Amino acid sequence: MIRLRSFLGGEWRDGEGEGAVLEDPATEASVATTSTKGLDLAGALRFAREEGGPTLRAMTLAERGKLLDAMTSALQAKREALIDASIANAGTTRSDAKFDVDGAIGTLSYYAKLGLSLGDRRVRVEGEGEQITRSKRFWGHHVCVPRHGAAVHINAFNFPAWGLAEKAAVALLAGVPVVTKPATSTALTAYVLVETLVDAGVLPKGSLQLVCGGAGDLLDHLGPQDCLAFTGSGDTGAWMRALAPVTQRSVRVNVEADSLNAVVLGPDVRPGSDTWQAFVRDAVREITQKTGQKCTATRRIFVPREQIDAALEAIAEGLSVISFGLPSRDDVRMGPLASAQQLRDVQEGITRLEAAGAKVAFRKDGAPVGVPVGKGYFVPPTLLRLDDPHVGVVHEHEVFGPVSTVMPYGTVDEAVALVAKGEGGLVASVYTDDRDALERLLLGLAPWSGRVLVSSEKVADQAISPGLVLPSCVHGGPGRAGGGEELGGVRGLAFYEQRTAVQGDRALLDRVLG
Amino acid sequence: MIRLRSFLGGEWRDGEGEGAVLEDPATEASVATTSTKGLDLAGALRFAREEGGPTLRAMTLAERGKLLDAMTSALQAKREALIDASIANAGTTRSDAKFDVDGAIGTLSYYAKLGLSLGDRRVRVEGEGEQITRSKRFWGHHVCVPRHGAAVHINAFNFPAWGLAEKAAVALLAGVPVVTKPATSTALTAYVLVETLVDAGVLPKGSLQLVCGGAGDLLDHLGPQDCLAFTGSGDTGAWMRALAPVTQRSVRVNVEADSLNAVVLGPDVRPGSDTWQAFVRDAVREITQKTGQKCTATRRIFVPREQIDAALEAIAEGLSVISFGLPSRDDVRMGPLASAQQLRDVQEGITRLEAAGAKVAFRKDGAPVGVPVGKGYFVPPTLLRLDDPHVGVVHEHEVFGPVSTVMPYGTVDEAVALVAKGEGGLVASVYTDDRDALERLLLGLAPWSGRVLVSSEKVADQAISPGLVLPSCVHGGPGRAGGGEELGGVRGLAFYEQRTAVQGDRALLDRVLG
Repeated sequence: MIRLRSFLGGEWRDGEGEGAVLEDPATEASVATTSTKGLDLAGALRFAREEGGPTLRAMTLAERGKLLDAMTSALQAKREALIDASIANAGTTRSDAKFDVDGAIGTLSYYAKLGLSLGDRRVRVEGEGEQITRSKRFWGHHVCVPRHGAAVHINAFNFPAWGLAEKAAVALLAGVPVVTKPATSTALTAYVLVETLVDAGVLPKGSLQLVCGGAGDLLDHLGPQDCLAFTGSGDTGAWMRALAPVTQRSVRVNVEADSLNAVVLGPDVRPGSDTWQAFVRDAVREITQKTGQKCTATRRIFVPREQIDAALEAIAEGLSVISFGLPSRDDVRMGPLASAQQLRDVQEGITRLEAAGAKVAFRKDGAPVGVPVGKGYFVPPTLLRLDDPHVGVVHEHEVFGPVSTVMPYGTVDEAVALVAKGEGGLVASVYTDDRDALERLLLGLAPWSGRVLVSSEKVADQAISPGLVLPSCVHGGPGRAGGGEELGGVRGLAFYEQRTAVQGDRALLDRVLG
Repeated sequence: MIRLRSFLGGEWRDGEGEGAVLEDPATEASVATTSTKGLDLAGALRFAREEGGPTLRAMTLAERGKLLDAMTSALQAKREALIDASIANAGTTRSDAKFDVDGAIGTLSYYAKLGLSLGDRRVRVEGEGEQITRSKRFWGHHVCVPRHGAAVHINAFNFPAWGLAEKAAVALLAGVPVVTKPATSTALTAYVLVETLVDAGVLPKGSLQLVCGGAGDLLDHLGPQDCLAFTGSGDTGAWMRALAPVTQRSVRVNVEADSLNAVVLGPDVRPGSDTWQAFVRDAVREITQKTGQKCTATRRIFVPREQIDAALEAIAEGLSVISFGLPSRDDVRMGPLASAQQLRDVQEGITRLEAAGAKVAFRKDGAPVGVPVGKGYFVPPTLLRLDDPHVGVVHEHEVFGPVSTVMPYGTVDEAVALVAKGEGGLVASVYTDDRDALERLLLGLAPWSGRVLVSSEKVADQAISPGLVLPSCVHGGPGRAGGGEELGGVRGLAFYEQRTAVQGDRALLDRVLG
């Protein structure tokens, strides 16, 4: 059994007691234990602010880019160990483990290059500034400088590597030190990741600390220059927003939470066309990849009423070839859910949808492949059909597993209104070659979505699947999705920076700001 | 006695009972009454979302600019009535009333021009977008579209015209309808302003509603696409942030709250120099303009230890010629505080500073000019001296009146640390001609400030006073100042928009997005 520790104040520290037990969700075998009991988490925040912050701020953006590049190389060298950790503790197939681990490495690499492109400066200046009074000499600039606090990252169980790395990449490039807390149930991969970086000796003192286990009193000590980025449930996000340091000290909070991501198949798309095939392929991938445990996975599929039978049949056919079971086996395409709690939640969620009128249109038969009978937190790929698309619960309750619901719509405007009933999502996807439908869907869905993916005939074989989050595009969504914004290239830095208007003698400011 | 009403659902509506009594703070005479009891404020939000939003979104940015231009003209035509209302109910001198009213008109005019420059489009597209995968055809854009909710504006008592107009200008240009609530005690000017716009017939249906009096249950009905912008005390801001709709539904909140704005006189500046004169002139203006009731007024003045006597003497000399009393008189330079509550708060605040060791270095003698004996909420211009600048309360408690505290510092780094003890402010100002001191002050103060003003010899006669908020520069500050950001030209629109990543066939997206 592996013992995980926290990396705080520049040292590995162990909490008191046995703490939490991490499992292999395919076999229910114990994999590791970890505890943060008794650890000085307030001290970790101070260490970040007093050691990590000044060190990072002394570096130029290009130098921070080089730091991210060194982190990329260190992780690349230990890629297999990270993938193994993910399979063992997160129940991911090798393909799903790579999705997490390579996503982490790719995002670090992207921000490394971005840092180099931002150059040898410590202050980002927006544009040329402008004359702000009648005087041509008295000038206004807007500068973006690192906040002097710590970036606290509370990550979700589903992406222990990527979630840690994508948040850390942006904060470190912005010049803000990180205290990161993975979800305890799948923390092994995050632990191996941080251990790899520490062993490689690439991390400046205080730049990255790991809280491996419960968050204890960490959030009670947040201050006015700190940033809190959270990925997880809407309920927990709401609780964090109401914490006294947040409401009273203007701690910045970014929440990425529940999202009933939607797909709309355009009224023009005929079965068998390239656009149709892309729609079916993506639907199958979004239901099964990472066992549907992606915040961006599709939960609601809206199709023209006359196409619902054909759509269900085509997606079911795609799902029928997905074998599920022991994720380390080459012949298994889908692993278990990540924990017993997730299994309970998903089963309960399916029951709620069924109680609201949804019928199981397809569910993969048989027992999981290669696991002891009755063991593991498995739910087979499940496709639901709901003929009344206006039922509330399907727009409100996210079933975080390999489950999607197909619903019919009449007009394009009805489809827009149905997507909006989700009250804000991370991604909405549109499959159409009809210019008018596209325009109405795109502009109708944009206010309710952090991202809109449009697949059409000419890009059907080149487009990404809706669930893929790219570092160059913003990730986050309004309303139920938490109202946050991560990534998006340089846009992501803003959360960790203070944007300050600077007014004065133009020549003098230009000299100081370089 | 004037009866104020609310403008809701396209009609003027009166609440039940007498409600609140508005006073002339110079004479304590009653000026008006207003009540919102029994009014349907949830209905006002629905009216904004269902009538105002679609109407504004159907307009292009240029058309919204024309709307702001029409509002500008309507207010310009009633400028004298607005100034009179301000003098009667806010206790402002004519000069201070113009500061509020002309600020309102100027900000509307600025955003009108900005709207015209943004052109005949409804969607703002950021840059050219970029290739986001290996395919040159599959493209990523970021678009900014109006949120589909209402913008609720809760304004402070000190700028009934400007506060209403600066928030409304930005929201309306972004395409989001406004429900605005002035502080009840000085609501007369806001009432006259909205009445002017309604009478001029320039407002699209549902685009601007006025809640004149208590906010009732307005905030309980906020939804996931609504925006709440608040200016006022930090305690009220914290309370708003913790409201269930805000924490649970990702209502966007912008808070502009307490701020211990600071001034640093550089170590190089000698008495009598142009830079010194600018420092003294601005200090006097910031203490007395609007009777010190500006969120951006200077509260803390840091001077080199060896200059503290000279600085106190020079500022006191400037204050000694400021007559205070009945604000409608031409020979009066400073009016009363805006209400009995403000008087109590300021007197208590001075007592707290004195208890912490501050001494009165100067206080203008005599009774207020032209008012009945014992009447009016007057505090004379007051300059405090505090020889131990590390005392907590002077950095924590904002005395919102004609009061500033002068403190000594040793090194430039100590000055930076002292400013930072305010834990976040709206504006910090630096007076220096020393390049090294300037650089360290500018970069040291920026993370703690929404704005940094640098005054130096060559711009001493052209620079703005620190308290002036320009529409082209962001207004807001980190930490104690609320963590918000308003104005800043096009930057201000972001609060009312959803920024959405759009991915798809480049040619197709370019055609749809224009």
